[in-house]
Amino acid sequence: MKEHTIQLNLSPERKPKPQSADLGFGKIFTDHMFIMDYTEGQGWHDPRIVPYQPLSLDPSCMIFHYGQSVFEGLKAYLTEDNRVLLFRPERNFQRLNRSNERLCIPAVDVDMAIEALKQLISVEKEWIPKWEGTSLYIRPFIIATEPFLGVKPSSRYQFIIILSPVGLYYKEGIKPVKILVENEFVRAVAGGTGEAKTAGNYASSLKAQEIADRKEYSQVLWLDGVEKKYIEEVGSMNVFFKINGEVVTPALNGSILDGVTRNSVIQLLKHWGMTVTERRISMEELREAHQAGQLEEAFGTGTAAIISPIGELLWKDEKMIINDGVTGPVSEKLFHTITSIQGGKEPDPFNWTMEVEQCIEVK
Amino acid sequence: MKEHTIQLNLSPERKPKPQSADLGFGKIFTDHMFIMDYTEGQGWHDPRIVPYQPLSLDPSCMIFHYGQSVFEGLKAYLTEDNRVLLFRPERNFQRLNRSNERLCIPAVDVDMAIEALKQLISVEKEWIPKWEGTSLYIRPFIIATEPFLGVKPSSRYQFIIILSPVGLYYKEGIKPVKILVENEFVRAVAGGTGEAKTAGNYASSLKAQEIADRKEYSQVLWLDGVEKKYIEEVGSMNVFFKINGEVVTPALNGSILDGVTRNSVIQLLKHWGMTVTERRISMEELREAHQAGQLEEAFGTGTAAIISPIGELLWKDEKMIINDGVTGPVSEKLFHTITSIQGGKEPDPFNWTMEVEQCIEVK
Repeated sequence: MKEHTIQLNLSPERKPKPQSADLGFGKIFTDHMFIMDYTEGQGWHDPRIVPYQPLSLDPSCMIFHYGQSVFEGLKAYLTEDNRVLLFRPERNFQRLNRSNERLCIPAVDVDMAIEALKQLISVEKEWIPKWEGTSLYIRPFIIATEPFLGVKPSSRYQFIIILSPVGLYYKEGIKPVKILVENEFVRAVAGGTGEAKTAGNYASSLKAQEIADRKEYSQVLWLDGVEKKYIEEVGSMNVFFKINGEVVTPALNGSILDGVTRNSVIQLLKHWGMTVTERRISMEELREAHQAGQLEEAFGTGTAAIISPIGELLWKDEKMIINDGVTGPVSEKLFHTITSIQGGKEPDPFNWTMEVEQCIEVK
Repeated sequence: MKEHTIQLNLSPERKPKPQSADLGFGKIFTDHMFIMDYTEGQGWHDPRIVPYQPLSLDPSCMIFHYGQSVFEGLKAYLTEDNRVLLFRPERNFQRLNRSNERLCIPAVDVDMAIEALKQLISVEKEWIPKWEGTSLYIRPFIIATEPFLGVKPSSRYQFIIILSPVGLYYKEGIKPVKILVENEFVRAVAGGTGEAKTAGNYASSLKAQEIADRKEYSQVLWLDGVEKKYIEEVGSMNVFFKINGEVVTPALNGSILDGVTRNSVIQLLKHWGMTVTERRISMEELREAHQAGQLEEAFGTGTAAIISPIGELLWKDEKMIINDGVTGPVSEKLFHTITSIQGGKEPDPFNWTMEVEQCIEVK
């Protein structure tokens, strides 16, 4: 793979690293980044690790006007014996390519992307925080960089990976959150881009989130765009419910994200002998289950928060308190098990973790 | 308006200007741009005209990840007696603020934005092409610039105006185009962002456009996202049909763009004593009108192309040839009248044009 030789241009200066577990999320970035260019007719070229630096882009670059972009989010963890683990990175880069397909962006080579990520993390190993609940958040993204005003797929792109040492995504941690069921705004619809991890999906979600914030709810629960009856996602997470002993989650229908944590939760629950069903779930069904005392737990799943228990749902004027507003045993066990596997503290029966060997010596 | 004093920093170098009417669209940019910053707690500040230059943005800037952005498109025209005219610019900046509202971006002062645009055009007057069918395309846009990974409205923005001398948007000119009715992909849905001029709407449209291109159709006709029965827009234009002597266009329903050219067309047609109705129009109705020989004309409207006649619609496997595939008299008259008003060649009964006085002397 000669064409994949990654050029190394290390920074002469190193920034101070965070000194406590109180890191926040997505505010601090490491000393280096990975970058690779795409040019029509030439393909992806010039993969390189360079000092973390501003992007210099013509104001007419298509990313600023037509939003052709995709991204991913995953994490690297430092184990107690100082090894570095990634969690199912191949799934993130495979999904990146499915997003690429929807957004008319050329695919990247998954093996090459993982190799690039490993080399970058190898350079930045000292940046991985060692405190409980912390990790190195990884943000791969692709943006359209052709300087042109006109609606068409770009002829140029940049694929970039940046790294950020992070604490907990939700300040609440594993404490249950209050969720507002959204009846006006719509996140996505079949035939749209809901399945893709693309910038526009997040921009369109801000308005509903702003209204939820004002009402002191943490996130919104999105309903389907057609009938506004069926449950899709919660905020930027997938959502699960335990109803009368059985776990249910909305089936992948083209408008919700195929979450890596979602998939891991389904596998784990099955491994534990529980019944998990992916299907269409209406708010009316959820309300009936709640009234019958059968809505036992609810939680969101995502890379940032892993498991985020839901203590309350507000639908129109009806408040549904779930499990007395405390974290349920299934949510708790999932959070503990997944974070333990990610951190190398528990056996990994599914081979989900991938070790990053120290392939580059950094002084 | 002391806070609105626009700083001038003119470029010592001037690029060569295009030498013929064969300009293309959106590829050439002028010597200067307008830029203004927003900082939470401080509001919009530091409006300035500076040399056209790359934007330097941290790779974590929210525009690259969460797509919080809006834009506008309008044109400046040079009249035969060397005056500069804008076409209804207040409507563009009012719409920019409606898009801002949907995307949780702080509003800009419309008067200030128009003043900024006038000053910028005054500096760049020599860039306005003088050939028939050419103009100076104006692209105001706002991007989220806070360096932060997390889904929330940005605390920082940049409002930028760039200028591009342009020829005809569609190479076909006023020649009728072939349009594919889209049955799978969806542009927008009620509760989404269809009414806003935001990047994500354009990114999500690329896939359907790519398929249309392959079938040798110029654009797609979007149907509603819920039932896929009702007509919304064509490509990135509004759409009109003349059925049995009456002109109809989809009513503004929250998922289609409130086009400036659309509004001007409605006013002009009424001024001419024609019946124009804004209402819901189904593909089935259109098909029946076509079969009955009553679908007399169809055309798209937008700032870039002004009027784009439709010569053929392909819906599923049915081809509908409209007006024998030639430009109809209403399309022709609208194109001629609007471009003549824009260029100062015909009286302007609606006071649509706004003159840009030479307010800045440029050597």
